Amino acid sequence: MASSEIDALTQALARLPGLGPRSARRAVLHLLKRRETSLAPLLRALERVNEALSICSTCGNVDTIDPCTVCADPRRDDRLLCVVEEVSDLWALDRSRLFPGRFHVLGGRLSALEGVRPEDLSIDMLIGRIARGGVDEVVLAMNATLEGQTTAHYLAERLETFPVRITQLAHGLPVGGELDYLDEGTLAQALRARRPVS
Amino acid sequence: MASSEIDALTQALARLPGLGPRSARRAVLHLLKRRETSLAPLLRALERVNEALSICSTCGNVDTIDPCTVCADPRRDDRLLCVVEEVSDLWALDRSRLFPGRFHVLGGRLSALEGVRPEDLSIDMLIGRIARGGVDEVVLAMNATLEGQTTAHYLAERLETFPVRITQLAHGLPVGGELDYLDEGTLAQALRARRPVS
Ligand SMILES: [Zn+2]
Ligand SMILES: [Zn+2]
Repeated sequence: MASSEIDALTQALARLPGLGPRSARRAVLHLLKRRETSLAPLLRALERVNEALSICSTCGNVDTIDPCTVCADPRRDDRLLCVVEEVSDLWALDRSRLFPGRFHVLGGRLSALEGVRPEDLSIDMLIGRIARGGVDEVVLAMNATLEGQTTAHYLAERLETFPVRITQLAHGLPVGGELDYLDEGTLAQALRARRPVS
Repeated sequence: MASSEIDALTQALARLPGLGPRSARRAVLHLLKRRETSLAPLLRALERVNEALSICSTCGNVDTIDPCTVCADPRRDDRLLCVVEEVSDLWALDRSRLFPGRFHVLGGRLSALEGVRPEDLSIDMLIGRIARGGVDEVVLAMNATLEGQTTAHYLAERLETFPVRITQLAHGLPVGGELDYLDEGTLAQALRARRPVS
C-alpha cells in the first residue's frame, strides 16, 4: 500500500495501548497531512524525551530529569511518603493534586503467579529511604487487587520496626479496581479516609 | 506532574485522532517504560517519514516517494482510473486489493457549506491525466454522502466529452457512510457492481 517508511510508522503507532491497526492508520494519515502542525511537534517532543529520559534514582519515577520533577519539588512534604506499584499510579495520584508528600514506585506487585518476588521490586530502596529518617507516615497505595493487598501486607510487616505510621488507602476503591482508572472523586475519598494498617 | 518535555509529548499524542488526554498519557508511559522497543522505533519511523514525506505529483497520494508507491507500481492497469475524495479513501481501496488500476485524489469534495469549489480540488489535474489518453474507465468512488454524490455528478459532467466510460461505486454503500470505515466485503460488493453514471 504505502512505502516501507509509512508502514513502519503505522506499526510503531499500532503497538501503543489504545491504538490498533485501524486507528494507527488514521493517526498516520493525520500526521502526514499536517506535517508542520502535527508531525513536526510530535517528532520534536519524542526526540527531546528520548534524549533526556531517565529513571529517578530516588523514587523510581520516569522523567527527563533526575531527581524527578516530584522529588525535586521543594514544596512537597518530606514527612509523607506514598508507595505505589507503578509509575502510572504515581502520575494518577499526582495529577489529582490530593497528596502533598513524596512518592516511591515499587515497579510492580508481589505475584506468585507471575513469579514476582520482593527482591524484584524496589523494596530495599524504599527501606533505605525510611531508614534515613524524616518520614512520619508511609501511605501504602497499592491497587485493590489480591496481589496489591498482599504486597501492602508484606510491606507493612517489613516496615513495622521503623518509627513511622503506616497507612493504606481506604477501602471503598472498587474491588479489582486499578488506581490509574479511577476518577478523582473516588481517589480523593480513598485518600481522605486512609487508615492505619491493622 | 511531569517535566515539560513529557507534557509536550503527551499533548502531541493527544491531538492524534482516536487518542484523548487519558490514552495519550498511557501511551507516553508505555513509551517511557519501553525506550528501546517502543520509543526508539517510533522515533526512527517518524524521522524517516518526516525526511521523505511528499505529495505524489501524479495522483495526490501522500507517500515518501514521488511518484508514489501506487503510481510507480508497473503491475497496475493504466486504463482504469479510480477517483477518490481523500488519501484515506485511496488507502482503504488499495488495502482491499480489489482495484487493479490507478488512483486520483481530489483532496476533498464540493461543499457549498464549507465553501469548497471545483478549483479547490485537483480536478484540472484529473482532466489533464484523462486528456493525455490511455484511460478507458474512470471510476468515481466518492463517499455516499450528499456532497460526495454532488461531486460525482459534477465530475461526470466535466468528463462527458472524453472517450472514457464513467462509472461509480454501486449504491449499496450505507447512506452517509464513508469509504474508509467500510468493511472489505461491502467495498468488494460495491466495486463489483459498479455501474455507468446515468
Ligand atoms: Zn523521583
Ligand atoms: Zn501517485
